[in-house]
Amino acid sequence: MIMRMSSLFLRTLREDPADAEVPSHKLLVRAGYVRRAAPGIYTWLPLGLKVLRKVEAIVREEMDAIGAQELTFPALLPREPYEATNRWTEYGDSLFRVVDRKGADYLLGPTHEEMFTLTVKDLYSSYKDLPLSIYQIQNKYRDEARPRAGILRGREFVMKDSYSFDVDDAGLEASYQAHRDAYVRIFDRLGFDYAIVKATSGAMGGSRSEEFLAKADVGEDTYVRSPGGYAANVEAVTTLAPEPVPFDDAPAAHAEDTPDTPTIATLVDHLNAAHPREDRPWAAGDTLKNVLLMLKHPDGTKEPLAIGLPGDREVDQKRLEGQLEPIEVEPMTDEELKEFPALVKGYIGPAYDGRTILGEESESGIRYLVDPRVVEGTRWVTGANSPGQHVLDLVAGRDFTADGTIEAAEVKAGDPAPDGSGPLELARGIEMGHVFQLGRKYAEALDLKVLDENGKLVTVTMGSYGIGVSRAVGAIAEGTLDEIGLCWPRHVAPADVHLVAAGKDEAIFAAADRIATELSQAGVEVLYDDRTGKISPGVKFKDAELIGVPTIVVVGKNLATDGTVEVRDRKSGEKQALAADHVVAHLVDLVRTA
Amino acid sequence: MIMRMSSLFLRTLREDPADAEVPSHKLLVRAGYVRRAAPGIYTWLPLGLKVLRKVEAIVREEMDAIGAQELTFPALLPREPYEATNRWTEYGDSLFRVVDRKGADYLLGPTHEEMFTLTVKDLYSSYKDLPLSIYQIQNKYRDEARPRAGILRGREFVMKDSYSFDVDDAGLEASYQAHRDAYVRIFDRLGFDYAIVKATSGAMGGSRSEEFLAKADVGEDTYVRSPGGYAANVEAVTTLAPEPVPFDDAPAAHAEDTPDTPTIATLVDHLNAAHPREDRPWAAGDTLKNVLLMLKHPDGTKEPLAIGLPGDREVDQKRLEGQLEPIEVEPMTDEELKEFPALVKGYIGPAYDGRTILGEESESGIRYLVDPRVVEGTRWVTGANSPGQHVLDLVAGRDFTADGTIEAAEVKAGDPAPDGSGPLELARGIEMGHVFQLGRKYAEALDLKVLDENGKLVTVTMGSYGIGVSRAVGAIAEGTLDEIGLCWPRHVAPADVHLVAAGKDEAIFAAADRIATELSQAGVEVLYDDRTGKISPGVKFKDAELIGVPTIVVVGKNLATDGTVEVRDRKSGEKQALAADHVVAHLVDLVRTA
Repeated sequence: MIMRMSSLFLRTLREDPADAEVPSHKLLVRAGYVRRAAPGIYTWLPLGLKVLRKVEAIVREEMDAIGAQELTFPALLPREPYEATNRWTEYGDSLFRVVDRKGADYLLGPTHEEMFTLTVKDLYSSYKDLPLSIYQIQNKYRDEARPRAGILRGREFVMKDSYSFDVDDAGLEASYQAHRDAYVRIFDRLGFDYAIVKATSGAMGGSRSEEFLAKADVGEDTYVRSPGGYAANVEAVTTLAPEPVPFDDAPAAHAEDTPDTPTIATLVDHLNAAHPREDRPWAAGDTLKNVLLMLKHPDGTKEPLAIGLPGDREVDQKRLEGQLEPIEVEPMTDEELKEFPALVKGYIGPAYDGRTILGEESESGIRYLVDPRVVEGTRWVTGANSPGQHVLDLVAGRDFTADGTIEAAEVKAGDPAPDGSGPLELARGIEMGHVFQLGRKYAEALDLKVLDENGKLVTVTMGSYGIGVSRAVGAIAEGTLDEIGLCWPRHVAPADVHLVAAGKDEAIFAAADRIATELSQAGVEVLYDDRTGKISPGVKFKDAELIGVPTIVVVGKNLATDGTVEVRDRKSGEKQALAADHVVAHLVDLVRTA
Repeated sequence: MIMRMSSLFLRTLREDPADAEVPSHKLLVRAGYVRRAAPGIYTWLPLGLKVLRKVEAIVREEMDAIGAQELTFPALLPREPYEATNRWTEYGDSLFRVVDRKGADYLLGPTHEEMFTLTVKDLYSSYKDLPLSIYQIQNKYRDEARPRAGILRGREFVMKDSYSFDVDDAGLEASYQAHRDAYVRIFDRLGFDYAIVKATSGAMGGSRSEEFLAKADVGEDTYVRSPGGYAANVEAVTTLAPEPVPFDDAPAAHAEDTPDTPTIATLVDHLNAAHPREDRPWAAGDTLKNVLLMLKHPDGTKEPLAIGLPGDREVDQKRLEGQLEPIEVEPMTDEELKEFPALVKGYIGPAYDGRTILGEESESGIRYLVDPRVVEGTRWVTGANSPGQHVLDLVAGRDFTADGTIEAAEVKAGDPAPDGSGPLELARGIEMGHVFQLGRKYAEALDLKVLDENGKLVTVTMGSYGIGVSRAVGAIAEGTLDEIGLCWPRHVAPADVHLVAAGKDEAIFAAADRIATELSQAGVEVLYDDRTGKISPGVKFKDAELIGVPTIVVVGKNLATDGTVEVRDRKSGEKQALAADHVVAHLVDLVRTA
């Protein structure tokens, strides 16, 4: 196949598009791969479509290799099944909704658990039909609040979603493992650096869950890793709770005036001045911060929540919401705070002086959850529920008891890995794939049962496995680009060779034409810059660097002097002069052995 | 590739689905190719997706062969471009509309003229960039009032749409011809009987236009053909108007009482009784029927229209609407008729006795268009605008003049072809493809201009070319099925060979396994019925006939007796016994030479 630049539907741009934030997005637009049609909605131009199709083909091959069967569901879906699983409501504003001419409600599918489940229910009825893995590669829709980063987070995007159906947990585990292995092969073949991290399953429910993250500074996902090999999405990190502390000889809780301590830092200064300690100075981690939030349910109702956590940590809203999905979290406003007269702003503590302020059974009645580090016996400095006063030596389990614990605190570099494998390091990534065990949530909601060996109806257990196919194109671009342009791994590049006819001599074009034809006949995909007229060799080189085909071949002046052409490796920049007569064989070999 | 029936996600059904009207739809559901997700919205199960992909591949190859370049636009599109061309309004209820979380209007693309035009405008600026042909194969959406016939008329469907861009009319003609030729190759390869007919361009505007219709009794499109080779969609047929008739010796128009003539038939009876003619009896065609309609504009406003046509013809609403699009046509209600006191229901005529009743300048003010057969000098019997009275010898051009002519009358078998090529025959078909010259309509609306050779800005001229890809699957099924099931042409069949292991002997399965493996290794696609247990050979044969793979190979009892297997041609039913050892070579040859 030869794509000729003289007729290719392509215009490279020298300027970055105004709305582009991340490097890959800028380059994909500038190099003519994609173009914005609306916020978060992109057109795939010929070069971009070639890359997208190659990624799709790799995904398809590996899914087929594990016996998954491809089908295609509609993108426009009826409301009813999503009503049955409550996702019509839970998805909230993220769902694109459509009303047809008869007034019936539809949605543009964000994921297809319901449709897959119902179709299996429709066709299958016996344990003998299982296990089954089915998948599709198809447009998905989510009305993101802040579509950004081009195709990395679009509102219309291509996704591969597969689902496994098994009669028991062991079967699910095997299906999960098969998919996980296939994903490793897929991401290896796509040719970029990724991490596999533990994940929460979010709105999906279910148990075992892992994400495949492309390592990228621009990634929206933060994950952690330890020297001993622990890796998890921050949402999934569990805190290593300390052992309970004996508190028999702890002094009684006692309040004191703490004037001019509007912040934790000033409170710590006060403590170090008023109560200097010999072993170690007071620190923010000695204080108990009580954060008041409002939980917003999908149906619009709100409820208050108080979270107690060490003063050296903030609440990580994304981490918190990851556990509460589909509930959204907002700070409690001053107006809302007025509803709770027991709460003294700036001096809130869970209990003191015979009063209980936070907790379902307390004066405020607000549910009170604490960080797992707030174990029995730990002593805290916190608000005394009296203006200008804090209480010291407030002991968890003696002076106050929370309604439970919650993983709401930010994860920090240096925190211990929960499996004891060392201190955590933070990194950023782009979620490329997600495998998880849905379990029986959807099968129960939609009544998917089969007869087992004993003729008894059993509920099917499911796995759900997604790959962001269009996002992968962005992530590969992001992970491989350099300062001069895109730099595609060979297996997903829009062509194998970018052939440049550099000069005006007829002999140059004749030689380049011959090379293009011979390469094409040998099955090598050629992007051939055959443009004539005012396009200088310099412009052609810049375009080739920007477009990022892995091998650039320049037919130029040396052809006349010593009969050679130049073969450049786009990534390393290495150049090699080869006899024009031998270059085709060399390139065919290069491409075939890649 | 081997698809094993033991694990294939497939259940054939013995009963027709309740909602299926046409044979292909019934069989595609029963044989497990597609499944309804909502009215007009279908899931493509594994077998169906294979056929769809093969059709797509053929379309893609032929588009690439004429140098058309593939890209993909979003399905979810912003309102603005469709506003600029007025299609946001013109499409009316047929458009699926979406409002995003920020309140912005979107639509699900029914066709993409606007997006293609804007993208070319965005990238290109010179005549040197043209000609250009670009295309996509992608989901389209139309909220059909009566989705029917399964995938033949869906609300979500796969379409290939391409557009050509040229600097002048000669260029457009060449691009049009290239597409037309490619379409001939595509439909030839798809393997079904089709007709190419002249068409109107409907809501699209433009000039030259042809449709590719699959010949099918269940088709929604009626077309005509003549012995001399004329072929046109009924909407596009033009009436061969007779020459004007001299009327110097025509008697003056004269009214008479015509009691008890509520219908044209009774009026004709009255005429034959009261005014017997020697040369030929009075017939319905001697009367002038005046039909009152309301034209409904996309913005909801209505205007009246009167159509005069020979009394032996009805108004063909589809034909009329085809010319008036996007205007819809409704009969005038009695309530609406009351607004026009000059009109006497049942006795309406254009003029008589010094009064003019129909026409823009008449008493009613209603625009009056007549059938092209109502030429100057023709004499008519029509209403006298007086209860119980008709007028005779009302001469067109003497006694009344219409505001113009219109092609609103039904086309009848036996009507003369407009090109003089003989009497027309009526036939039905399914619209599979449409090629037409858009001209400059979209380029003007969206200001797509390029610099010509002289540095002058000229408006680009466009062609638009569509193929209903998912519809083609239905049309091929419809055109090839027989009384026992589907019967795919080889190039689009879900597999090359349907291999049936018929029996319980291990030797049968061993031989079938070997044949399946060897065929697959030779690149032959095998659908292998390897089911064990209670599935009888009879059930397997019925499934094979229903599924419709062109070659069925049965490994059964004869294997033990004389070492042969049976090769059946699904279409002809011909059976052949071949030595099991030689069958693979035979089948490979059969598939390769097809």
